[in-house]
Amino acid sequence: MSIKDTQFSSAKNAFVPPENAKSRVSSFMKTLQDEICSELEALDGSGQSFHEDSWEREEGGGGRTRVMKEGDLIEQGGVNFSEVFGKQLPPSILKQRPEAEGNEFYATGTSMVLHPRNPYVPTVHLNYRYFEAGPVWWFGGGADLTPYYPFAEDAVHFHQTLKTHCDRHHQEYYPVFKRWCDEYFYIKHRQENRGIGGLFFDYQDGQGELYRGPDPNSAAGQYSSQLGPIEQRSWEDLFAFVQDCGQAFLPAYVPIAKERRTIDYGERERNFQLYRRGRYVEFNLVYDRGTLFGLQTKGRIESILMSLPPLVRWEYCYYPEPNTREAELYDTFLKPQDWVNWNYQG
Amino acid sequence: MSIKDTQFSSAKNAFVPPENAKSRVSSFMKTLQDEICSELEALDGSGQSFHEDSWEREEGGGGRTRVMKEGDLIEQGGVNFSEVFGKQLPPSILKQRPEAEGNEFYATGTSMVLHPRNPYVPTVHLNYRYFEAGPVWWFGGGADLTPYYPFAEDAVHFHQTLKTHCDRHHQEYYPVFKRWCDEYFYIKHRQENRGIGGLFFDYQDGQGELYRGPDPNSAAGQYSSQLGPIEQRSWEDLFAFVQDCGQAFLPAYVPIAKERRTIDYGERERNFQLYRRGRYVEFNLVYDRGTLFGLQTKGRIESILMSLPPLVRWEYCYYPEPNTREAELYDTFLKPQDWVNWNYQG
Repeated sequence: MSIKDTQFSSAKNAFVPPENAKSRVSSFMKTLQDEICSELEALDGSGQSFHEDSWEREEGGGGRTRVMKEGDLIEQGGVNFSEVFGKQLPPSILKQRPEAEGNEFYATGTSMVLHPRNPYVPTVHLNYRYFEAGPVWWFGGGADLTPYYPFAEDAVHFHQTLKTHCDRHHQEYYPVFKRWCDEYFYIKHRQENRGIGGLFFDYQDGQGELYRGPDPNSAAGQYSSQLGPIEQRSWEDLFAFVQDCGQAFLPAYVPIAKERRTIDYGERERNFQLYRRGRYVEFNLVYDRGTLFGLQTKGRIESILMSLPPLVRWEYCYYPEPNTREAELYDTFLKPQDWVNWNYQG
Repeated sequence: MSIKDTQFSSAKNAFVPPENAKSRVSSFMKTLQDEICSELEALDGSGQSFHEDSWEREEGGGGRTRVMKEGDLIEQGGVNFSEVFGKQLPPSILKQRPEAEGNEFYATGTSMVLHPRNPYVPTVHLNYRYFEAGPVWWFGGGADLTPYYPFAEDAVHFHQTLKTHCDRHHQEYYPVFKRWCDEYFYIKHRQENRGIGGLFFDYQDGQGELYRGPDPNSAAGQYSSQLGPIEQRSWEDLFAFVQDCGQAFLPAYVPIAKERRTIDYGERERNFQLYRRGRYVEFNLVYDRGTLFGLQTKGRIESILMSLPPLVRWEYCYYPEPNTREAELYDTFLKPQDWVNWNYQG
């Protein structure tokens, strides 16, 4: 081995996971679940708590699913932790990571969807995950907000909080992962975004390419230029980044929920909320990568589908009337916007 | 050309569509839509009628969608006719019909889903369709019933009516298409059938193989043996069969709706109906061939998704209590059964 090879090999070590990578990441994912549930219970204030089901997966691993039903703030919310392993990743992932072919895989993550009762409080989703499969490993995840009756200042706050946490790690993270989020949470058949976005990333292995889309299974296609590349980052750098993303959730969401939960609403707002929840179902069942992964790997079905709303309406040919709050959602908030530079009258 | 070739070619003519095939089939499909809508309006009795929207498709063709909302019997129902053409069939169909590759296609059909208000009246679905694409043509379709609070005699009546109409054309049709229906309307991730089935067939071009499953995009997989083959049948034979299937719908469904619509129900039955409607959404968005075809060919989205129920509930970890009517649905009716030979106490 030449000196050059040795140096490369030594330098490369920072780019392979440490021996205790799995236990460190899964421990973080569990702690994140604990922290989120604990603060959400306090926030809900109804005395309702998350009910936990621990489960095992036949082909390896398991998880703990926590669900709150009929809370005061939270009509239904689920926070799931899982740690699974198996013989082979499903085809949808192998297409993106062909090096994983023929290798056993390990995956751990936390995912959450909250469906608030009050139509003025946005639905929110978070998911962070980590994979190892033979020679490859990567982090993925993100968080995004889906308002029904939206407020520009809430969109700015949510995005600014995520950006602040991202910027501590790399200036490119927020702009690239914000655009990726807009691309990913796009409901192609409706030509609408699911909500106001946030962050989304996948296949982050410290190599220079930040953007690894579009995914053949996602709605995709708003932009496909390769963003980046940037300098390589170590496993530790990425894990620190993902931990910080996880920590960003509560400060990004809780102030919005507190502010909007007391606004009065009636049948009109409730009906519109139930109707818009239908879009959440359409996205999750037709396009969502996490749902697809769960169905393809025979995951625990109740945990995979706990993201679906408790009550939903479909209405043939509903379109909002012009110049209403409902139309404003479609015209402004369901299109990608540069929220951190948004000018609004507070 | 040898004499043998000429004979073959002449014999083969019965197996290619007549020149006016498209207009004859589309005319039948429109008449079927008219007849069904007219009888359903009379049956509903609320004075509500189907509202019609005519639409055109950018890439060619169009249709007329008819929807009834807030009827007395029918909480929401849609009956759609469409006739579309385009440059290329979507990949999901080309996989099954590679001969169609590179050819323009023509497709016409009628599809219907009724979501009754009373949980004792089953949801029902019908779809018949016809395709031509270069050297290939075929008929597809079927009808199937999805009860919430089921009655064995209704299942027998529905299946027996379909069988009677099938048997006029070929003894193999009912047994093969009944099993194919059980296979197709299977919600793999729930390990449940969508309902009590009925008929389903696809790729019927008069060649000997009746069964052409499983489809890679369907839930599939309960059986995969090739059934048949039977003797070749002409285009006229198949069109006559499909027309008769269409005629079977009203006598198969209407007596059931009439009989069950007056049964009293309360919150428990309504809640269970809304919960089970969630399965309809899961099937249609995750597995259904018609929905997939519509989304892939940029069909009119409101017409494709009019099959989704007006109000739906999801509930984490709901399972029916043993020895209840709800449990009976799961234990007996959501599994394939030999309904025409069923023994029941009437």
